[in-house]
Order: sequence, then structure tokens, then C-alpha cells
Amino acid sequence: MKWCRFDNGGVPIYGLVEGDQVIQVDGDPFNGHRETDVRLDLGQVKLLVPVVPPTLYAGGLNYPDHVVWAAEHAGTAPVWPKEPIVGTRATSGLIAHEENIVKPDDATEEFQYEGELVAVIGKTAKYLSREEALDCVLGYTIGNDVSERTWQRDDPNNWRAKDSDTFHPMGPFITTGIDPTDLEVKVRLNGDEKIRFNTGTMIWAVADYIQKITRYHTLQPGDTIWTGTEGATLNMYPGDTIEIEIQDIGILRNRVVSES
Amino acid sequence: MKWCRFDNGGVPIYGLVEGDQVIQVDGDPFNGHRETDVRLDLGQVKLLVPVVPPTLYAGGLNYPDHVVWAAEHAGTAPVWPKEPIVGTRATSGLIAHEENIVKPDDATEEFQYEGELVAVIGKTAKYLSREEALDCVLGYTIGNDVSERTWQRDDPNNWRAKDSDTFHPMGPFITTGIDPTDLEVKVRLNGDEKIRFNTGTMIWAVADYIQKITRYHTLQPGDTIWTGTEGATLNMYPGDTIEIEIQDIGILRNRVVSES
Repeated sequence: MKWCRFDNGGVPIYGLVEGDQVIQVDGDPFNGHRETDVRLDLGQVKLLVPVVPPTLYAGGLNYPDHVVWAAEHAGTAPVWPKEPIVGTRATSGLIAHEENIVKPDDATEEFQYEGELVAVIGKTAKYLSREEALDCVLGYTIGNDVSERTWQRDDPNNWRAKDSDTFHPMGPFITTGIDPTDLEVKVRLNGDEKIRFNTGTMIWAVADYIQKITRYHTLQPGDTIWTGTEGATLNMYPGDTIEIEIQDIGILRNRVVSES
Repeated sequence: MKWCRFDNGGVPIYGLVEGDQVIQVDGDPFNGHRETDVRLDLGQVKLLVPVVPPTLYAGGLNYPDHVVWAAEHAGTAPVWPKEPIVGTRATSGLIAHEENIVKPDDATEEFQYEGELVAVIGKTAKYLSREEALDCVLGYTIGNDVSERTWQRDDPNNWRAKDSDTFHPMGPFITTGIDPTDLEVKVRLNGDEKIRFNTGTMIWAVADYIQKITRYHTLQPGDTIWTGTEGATLNMYPGDTIEIEIQDIGILRNRVVSES
């Protein structure tokens, strides 16, 4: 099942994507829904972020080559995370598929993408074991964790480096019933594939994150867990288009524009 | 004007506090309201957190004695923040006045309170100057930024140390029309006053935080900015009651209980 959320005359509503059609629903993926008779052309609807999470959790340093790259970039030795690294982010930075990433005027050249699998929580959850962890997941979407690398050095909370307005493209769809440990991710900059990786190479899996988070936090319906990216990341410039494609979910595409 | 938010048969609604009465309103402080004829006894309503913020911003190391204390505690030299320190937190840790702070079983003795003034944003805001910064503020409430100090050392994101379930008591009221640069704060542990300070001694004022945040983030109605605490903080144990009183707002009171 593939969920989308779209604008209906100023009101966000949910739909189910089938091919190039959207079946409008009453309700939502979290509290129950009923299909209506309304069918829309997917190309004609204005997609919104598929959910506005009560809390946006973000993992970090979660793929082997990215750990090595980040250490080289910082001039330090790579440090393998002994447990999942968790942070939270503002939701004000969320933008939808096809909306523009705005590069702040004072950002340096090191303004980069990070293509990530995002787990969307479907129900309230606390104290989950690793084995039952995925039971609370509704499905998966795609995130681009835009990062200004020079700001990141002095910003332990990443509130500016990773969290400014438009720094969190997410979407286009939430796909249910797929295995988060075996999905192919491709990242393209202006149409050129820059990296391809499988989510099975995550250092800590979605289930590990959920087990750890729910030891201390109650996860809520709509919360999202961003799971980190792989490899070296590259600079983006105004005019560039960045696409992140994840198998069985879709393509998240955004253009970079200048703030001024 | 003093706002409260309370439970009305499972539905959160807003009211205006006048003495020991609550005037129930239609609407809310952000989108307009109308007083109803319903008057309730303040002592009889179940208060909720006065707002669930889209984003909970948290300042840090923002009072001189606390900067010195935190450095002594960490065995380092005090470092004066050259600009406001900003982070964001999960909202799942919010609890209301008179609800219980749950001390996790694996928390150490260093489980502490932080009494803080909290600014509540009233309208969408971006690119505010310091002079116009306070125009976007609806009013002020009280926060207790509960902190596990040993976890804090290894937790740059503070997601566990300051962000676990029940670690963010907030309330009881939002007071409008008061000056955030001259409010007396008193913190009492089991009825004994442990510290008294004035918000005028903040290193970075509410206006500084708003100016800095809105350079990069769009503030949204209901967002909260927690502004840090003063002085040394003390351990709390199950059975303790912690009260934070701020002039013209009220008293935020919570009891500590054990997780198990």
C-alpha cells in the first residue's frame, strides 16, 4: 500500500497511490480510513510531506563508508558507533517532493545532500524489544537530510547545520509492507547517479533504533526516524536538482535555489 | 491575560484564568477566541500542558552562575557562549503541572531539575531583528528541563539526558503582556527554596534567541523557546516535589516517582 498526502483546496488529505492514480480517502493511515469514489491523476495533485511528525528523530553515522568519509572530512580517526546515535530535529524544515531547497546566503560551498530511508511510526509504542520493534512501523518514505558541513562542526545540536528551513525534504510516498533491511537507494545529482547502496548495510537497523528510542521515549503515530546515509556526499549549488530513489517507494526530487 | 489549557471530557480546550476561576473559551490563543458563559473552578479542572509545540527549542548555558557550575561539574574551564546556544527537543517528554516526573531505573543519582522561563510563540515569524523579536511572542510559561547529568556527557543531542518521557514539565499557564527581562524565578525542592534569580541576568535574552533562530528557521504559532536555568542544580529522588515559581505566571509543581 502506498500512501500520499496532498493539498485539497488548502486542506491536507490522504490518498492511496495506484499506478498513476490517487484514490482519495476519508481518514488517514494512523486512525483508520475508507476509500472514496474520487480518483485523481497523480500528476495533477500537489503532493505534501506525507506526514508532519510530532517528533522527527534523526540517526547519524549509520553506514560504514559514511563513517569513514565523515572522519576523513573532519581529519579524525573513524569512530564506529557503539549504539544507535539519536537526535531530534525541528519539523519546520520539512518540504515536500518538488519543493525547493533554499541555500542560505551565508552557507559555504559545503552544502550537501544525504539520501536516507525514513521509518514512519504508525502507533504509540514504548519498551519494544528488537524482535517486536518493527510492529509499530506504518511504512517507509524517503528523506534528504540537507547539511551545511562547516556549520556542523560548531553545532552539536545541528539546529542550524541540518535543521534550517527547507533542509528536510521528505516524501513522496509512504509504502507499507516492505523490508527495511533490503532496499536499494540511488542518489542522483542533475541526473548523474552519485551513489547506490542497500539499506541492509546500515550499522544499526531500524529495529535497533526503535528498541533504543522506546527504552526512554514513547513513540507517537506519525513520528519519523531518519536512518542516515552512505558514502561521501557532494556539494549542491543553486540550480542543481537532487533525486533520491528508493526501491518500492519512489523518487524524492528537489531543486536547489539561492536564498536571495 | 493568563491562558490555561485543560481536559474537557477527553478534549483539550483553552480557558482564561481569573483568580480561582477559569473562563472557558471557544478557539485558542493563536487563531482567535471568544469567551463563553462557562465558569469553572480552577481547582477542579485537569490542567494540560498549555501548548504542544510544533517545535520545542531549548537554550543552554544561559546564566552566569550556571555556566560556572556546569564547567566545575565537568572539570573544565567555564566557556562563555559567544552566541545563543540552540537545540531542539522531542515533545513526547512534555507533562503538565501536577503530573509525575518518572526517574528511569537506570538513571544515576545525578537526576536534576532546571527551572526555566519559556517563551511561547504566537505567530509565524522569520527574519526578525532584535528590536522586533518579541512581537511574535504570545506570552510566557514555566519549564522544568529535567536532566540526567551522567547521560548528558555522552549525549550531544541530549535526546536521552534531557528528553526522555516526562523530562519536560511545562505550565501551568501562559501569561501575556509581561516583560521577560525582569521576572523573579524561585525553585523549591520539598518546600525549601534552593535558588532565586531574575531573568534579567540571562546571558542571551529571549529577543536574542528569536533573532538568531528566525535567521534560519520559521517560528510557528505554539513553538516554545526554553531559556536555560541559573546556578547549581540539585539531585531529585523519588518522593521529592519540585516547584518552580515565576512571578506573574504561577507555580509549576511536579512530584518525582520511580519508573518501576
